[in-house]
Amino acid sequence: MRIAIDAMGGDYAPDEIVAGAVEAINQLDKDDELLLVGPQELIQAKLDGLGFKKGPLTVVDAPDVIGMDESPVDSLRSKPKSSIAVMAKLAKHGQADAVISAGNTGACVAAFQMRMRTLPGVNRPGIAVVFPMSAGPVTICDVGANIACKPINLYQYGLMSSVYAKAILGIARPRVGLMSIGQEDAKGNEVVKRTRELLRSDPRMDFIGNIEGRDIFRGVCDVVVCEGFVGNVILKLTEGAVDGLFRAIKQELMQEKARLALKFKPIIMRVYQKHDYNEYGGAPLLGINGTALICHGSSKSRTIRNAVFAAKKCHTQRINDKITECLSEARVRTSDA
Amino acid sequence: MRIAIDAMGGDYAPDEIVAGAVEAINQLDKDDELLLVGPQELIQAKLDGLGFKKGPLTVVDAPDVIGMDESPVDSLRSKPKSSIAVMAKLAKHGQADAVISAGNTGACVAAFQMRMRTLPGVNRPGIAVVFPMSAGPVTICDVGANIACKPINLYQYGLMSSVYAKAILGIARPRVGLMSIGQEDAKGNEVVKRTRELLRSDPRMDFIGNIEGRDIFRGVCDVVVCEGFVGNVILKLTEGAVDGLFRAIKQELMQEKARLALKFKPIIMRVYQKHDYNEYGGAPLLGINGTALICHGSSKSRTIRNAVFAAKKCHTQRINDKITECLSEARVRTSDA
Repeated sequence: MRIAIDAMGGDYAPDEIVAGAVEAINQLDKDDELLLVGPQELIQAKLDGLGFKKGPLTVVDAPDVIGMDESPVDSLRSKPKSSIAVMAKLAKHGQADAVISAGNTGACVAAFQMRMRTLPGVNRPGIAVVFPMSAGPVTICDVGANIACKPINLYQYGLMSSVYAKAILGIARPRVGLMSIGQEDAKGNEVVKRTRELLRSDPRMDFIGNIEGRDIFRGVCDVVVCEGFVGNVILKLTEGAVDGLFRAIKQELMQEKARLALKFKPIIMRVYQKHDYNEYGGAPLLGINGTALICHGSSKSRTIRNAVFAAKKCHTQRINDKITECLSEARVRTSDA
Repeated sequence: MRIAIDAMGGDYAPDEIVAGAVEAINQLDKDDELLLVGPQELIQAKLDGLGFKKGPLTVVDAPDVIGMDESPVDSLRSKPKSSIAVMAKLAKHGQADAVISAGNTGACVAAFQMRMRTLPGVNRPGIAVVFPMSAGPVTICDVGANIACKPINLYQYGLMSSVYAKAILGIARPRVGLMSIGQEDAKGNEVVKRTRELLRSDPRMDFIGNIEGRDIFRGVCDVVVCEGFVGNVILKLTEGAVDGLFRAIKQELMQEKARLALKFKPIIMRVYQKHDYNEYGGAPLLGINGTALICHGSSKSRTIRNAVFAAKKCHTQRINDKITECLSEARVRTSDA
């Protein structure tokens, strides 16, 4: 398969991205090929700098760059030769089987949705992030692709994430929770209440009902459904809370003996490793007609390398066929919700 | 002043609540009085059990109890003699200057709003929770009183929380952040975008613009404005993340030498203490015509004792006068938003 990588996406682009691509090369299958998308000369120079000589890797020229903070729609319009726009076109024309970017999330979602289109039956794609937890991975969808969710969108996120959790994470029967502000049925806004009915009406889903913010860390479910605004806050808040807490612990340790801080370091490292989102490579944009992985803005080479294998797994596991099949059998259709 | 306490509210009621009231008594001012609201005989027996003999504390009979998970509206209708309903009536008739409950939040908000009414100019009250952070306390409003916020509500939460942070937390010029999914102006849903305009239009506010989930832990602002659904997720998620992380660290420590775990314990305790929400006693329901503090469901006696002093401080600092004054000078009125 051909996997296109946005060489200019993310806080550490292009160095870490190019390095990640080179790291991935040795572990590709025979027919695989990587396309590094970015300003030709710059990317070639980075490859030369890494001593890269030969392998199934081609640079695809994309002279423009979309910044992390640019308006998605405006930037795509004014920069048709940006790496994100070029990748989306490669996918559209069958020149790439998967796209990977750690760049501007909004621009990625807009470009991929516009060019690659959605799978049959899918109303809106959603970004599914996997939280690595002690009790097992938790898939949260959506975390920012869709900030004006309708009940049908949320219902489909539940279905698609379940397919993903089953095929990719190996969870036989994923338990689905609906993010709300209390576990009782009466809790939540109108969209949540209507979504609950849809989720409950589908016997194929192991729907456990409403969950609350704290439940994500309690191993009560494998899939969390929420609208993109809430999911994005959850994603960034969790990151901030973990960082903040480790910093607070470190501060306290520094006031103790330095020797104690040293002893504590490997323990923190082990906790970090067990909760390391980099392992999953990136978050799939579920519902898109193709394979698209959106990586964290602070992705390092390891994240990109893992994203390449995540893309391969999505492809070999035929995630999209399974999603299409699952949605075609859904009794709830757009007209109902 | 007379402070009514819901003796039956919270996971550890009535024992911890009654104990908290008794603890508070010795530190009251001369004219203060506590009203413990709950089933007369039960509460009296608990007081006897604590060896309580004499003091400015009266039991007000309220034979019904609203469970933590009951529907707010239904339970208030079917249980007019519940502690929450009775407290609201005491406040309405001037028999209580403040009300404190660790019980069903929805029922508290509904009862207090219905009986005590809002302050002049306030559209909807909001619950403001103080997050104790290393960089200083952060006040987040709303965390669950209003899950269908209009821009005018969010704008008023910004104003009211600023008044609160100034008067109670001693922050001279509170910096206000608006919770969104990216710092750029273009980010966020329609309500967020319109709210940003309102907040920006008020020169009395130190509005710093959009913030993201992670910023709460970075000391970038003193007040966070968000709608109740998002705020409630933030509140419970943070709690869950901190608990989950401490549990993960503990697990790792247990696999090391027990001696190391022992050495680490005081450090964790110090981190806990610095981030202990119990210190603030409870979350004020800002905008209500009276003083209402809503405490965490898992409140212990210390929380209740601190809530009594928080109520006194709100009262002596004339928070409500300041809010009314601030809103009367606001150029943005209901009709504009």
